[in-house]
Amino acid sequence: MQFQISTELIEKIQFLIEERNDEELLLHLEEVHHADIAEIITELSLDDATYLVRLLDSGKTSEAIMELEEGVRERILETLSAKEIADELVEMDTDDAADIMNELSPELQKQVISEIKDEQHAEDIVELLRYPEDSAGGLMAKELVKVNENWSVTGCMTEMRAQAENVTRVHSIYVVDDKNRLKGRLSLKDLLTAASNENIRDVYIPNVDYVTVHTEGEEVARIMQKYDLEAIPVIDEMRRLVGRITIDDIVDFIKEEAERDYQMAAGISEGVEADDNIFKQTRARLPWLLIGMFGGLGAAGIISGFQGSMAVFPKLLLFVPLIQATAGNVGVQSSAIVVQGLANGSLKGNIIAKRLFKEISLALVNGISIAIIVFIISSVWFETSYTESLSVGVALISVILLAAMIGTVIPIILDKNNIDPAVATGPFITTSNDVFGILTYFLIAKAILGF
Amino acid sequence: MQFQISTELIEKIQFLIEERNDEELLLHLEEVHHADIAEIITELSLDDATYLVRLLDSGKTSEAIMELEEGVRERILETLSAKEIADELVEMDTDDAADIMNELSPELQKQVISEIKDEQHAEDIVELLRYPEDSAGGLMAKELVKVNENWSVTGCMTEMRAQAENVTRVHSIYVVDDKNRLKGRLSLKDLLTAASNENIRDVYIPNVDYVTVHTEGEEVARIMQKYDLEAIPVIDEMRRLVGRITIDDIVDFIKEEAERDYQMAAGISEGVEADDNIFKQTRARLPWLLIGMFGGLGAAGIISGFQGSMAVFPKLLLFVPLIQATAGNVGVQSSAIVVQGLANGSLKGNIIAKRLFKEISLALVNGISIAIIVFIISSVWFETSYTESLSVGVALISVILLAAMIGTVIPIILDKNNIDPAVATGPFITTSNDVFGILTYFLIAKAILGF
Repeated sequence: MQFQISTELIEKIQFLIEERNDEELLLHLEEVHHADIAEIITELSLDDATYLVRLLDSGKTSEAIMELEEGVRERILETLSAKEIADELVEMDTDDAADIMNELSPELQKQVISEIKDEQHAEDIVELLRYPEDSAGGLMAKELVKVNENWSVTGCMTEMRAQAENVTRVHSIYVVDDKNRLKGRLSLKDLLTAASNENIRDVYIPNVDYVTVHTEGEEVARIMQKYDLEAIPVIDEMRRLVGRITIDDIVDFIKEEAERDYQMAAGISEGVEADDNIFKQTRARLPWLLIGMFGGLGAAGIISGFQGSMAVFPKLLLFVPLIQATAGNVGVQSSAIVVQGLANGSLKGNIIAKRLFKEISLALVNGISIAIIVFIISSVWFETSYTESLSVGVALISVILLAAMIGTVIPIILDKNNIDPAVATGPFITTSNDVFGILTYFLIAKAILGF
Repeated sequence: MQFQISTELIEKIQFLIEERNDEELLLHLEEVHHADIAEIITELSLDDATYLVRLLDSGKTSEAIMELEEGVRERILETLSAKEIADELVEMDTDDAADIMNELSPELQKQVISEIKDEQHAEDIVELLRYPEDSAGGLMAKELVKVNENWSVTGCMTEMRAQAENVTRVHSIYVVDDKNRLKGRLSLKDLLTAASNENIRDVYIPNVDYVTVHTEGEEVARIMQKYDLEAIPVIDEMRRLVGRITIDDIVDFIKEEAERDYQMAAGISEGVEADDNIFKQTRARLPWLLIGMFGGLGAAGIISGFQGSMAVFPKLLLFVPLIQATAGNVGVQSSAIVVQGLANGSLKGNIIAKRLFKEISLALVNGISIAIIVFIISSVWFETSYTESLSVGVALISVILLAAMIGTVIPIILDKNNIDPAVATGPFITTSNDVFGILTYFLIAKAILGF
């Protein structure tokens, strides 16, 4: 069943576009899923892609446009007129349309809105644009199926059929009162099995999960996952039902969050994609490299301060990279566990003491193991004296302990201050561990060797 | 609406369990969602938790057990008899029951299966156990709603109502022929709007996405996301409909994958949780630290080889941490972009040349910026000579180029050889970059300073 985009297909389409053979093109692409149309568009030149978007039915292209990478979509939308963009938006669910609008300039937004003939749709999009993109209000769609608690089951079926025409997928039927306040929900299953002379009031489930327009996206994702919901209604300050969020949007949200955290840990901000341009990539990466650079210069300053003693114990300098690498690795491990625990909710409450205890125990096990191996290898291989080997070993244990503590405490503190703890992983934690690690190393060597 | 597990509630429940006040306990927990019951269980002692599981209705506890962290669940299941476990499994969907069974010993599995009275359910679970956990067969549930293409719409409604009783959520109705081969699907919406005298054959949609029992979980996740599916049918080698996978299982799958990749990048293998014991944590972390340790010892060997020249140019040693940190950071950035691009499918085909070109351009921009800053600071602050500063600067640019290339090429090569490219991030890439970076530094200094 898998549809494969072959080079032949792309070439065929390029040929047909060149020939302006619209009939054949439409025939070829009629049965193709919009997600695959999006892949084809990505492979084409901008001119060909725009030609295809203009040619195909906007019911199909609107969905394909949603699937495109942001960069590709941006370039295509730039070539379309406000009227043409409006035609695409009309075919989209309101949440998708609002997402696209968010990518346009305020000027173009106004023009596009004025070109949307369906006033209700335009109004809905404008309403959604008011909410921050990552809030429940920004994630929700206006399309939903709702029934009044005072209706009968039979009346309800008729009304629902009409509403269902506008909704791609019916997950739940929401029950509201005369003032549009959310009262409960009804499953299609319940409706199918209910007697037709009953009233909605008698059959609906009053126990319904919901979020408000202000709930943060992360919290929405957490609730929907925890309670295995496929859709959740969104209410406003007056308890009025104003939209719903479906699980497919949350899947995208979770993936984006995970990718962002992953990149943050790797020292890349702004959520860049592999094919973003050099300027955007530099802006996302250079700042982190500069943090690392200043850390490296700080380390140079520390070594410089001990350079007199290093003339006496030159072999100590050999182990600086080892100390640094170990401090960095341990710090990243400890912080990753905490950041992930905070993100998936498995760490909560007053956890500093408990986590620190665990990380310190773990650091002792790992530290002592590594210190013994290094003690032996340095004595044998690098012919360090007993006190030099001891300095390196004790320093390793101390540095691992220190790195584990920094890696554990910093994300927790950031989280408590409502800063995304993920920024604490990657270059940030590595750099501070590098500097503290090297300082610790020389201080311990100084104490043991007495310089 | 958010239900909050307060310390008071936990204490109240502990008190009621101590008092063996079952009536009050049931009253208190009647309205509580199973996901919240799971949280309560996690907070209780093992004895109290087991008491609660035995007391509450297995319809509720079976779902709560599914929500528990694996470690907690394991401890509770150990205290239950095979008969009691069987009672829980009977209430679960087959895919969940099979997941639980996978956590039991083969001996206990047999006992539990023999205690399941519902033979069809037992048979279904045994069937699911045959498939690898991460394949479509291992992810699917046997519960689904299907209709025969030869039925009438009216007959279909009656039959569906009966089937729907056993299925928690109806996503799609699958259409099969007399031999149970998948023919297409039917949406509830279509069924609601179809005339009752029509046949299923006339109204169903023959174009249906599906996977086979052998499709890998990752591929299932990719297809369901790409085509925004909420459920996908699973067929066997004979095209027979054998199960379906729902999006909530895929959400869990995606989260687990993301967490595993994140941990891998941080140098933690085996997918440990924050509250796993020290032994498991050590096994997941120590190997990566040892890789870093050997890298550090390798770096010590390199510095040792140049120690004669270092007596003449002692200031060169100051910049070893800077070189090392920069090489590590750049390598992680480059590899993270590639690993992520490979994982989300945005990088495919013959990409080495294209990616290398981009990463090299980027490395030049970042490298030259950093080299200039370091050149100035080292001259002014550390009073390095012009040729020493030049060595550091040129080395920085070279090391950044090298690290970017290693970070880009290694994950691509691993991926081509069907090894998870995520292993290439974190300590692995950092360590190799450390060693190559320091070696490059000294070789360039040697060439420029002529020692």
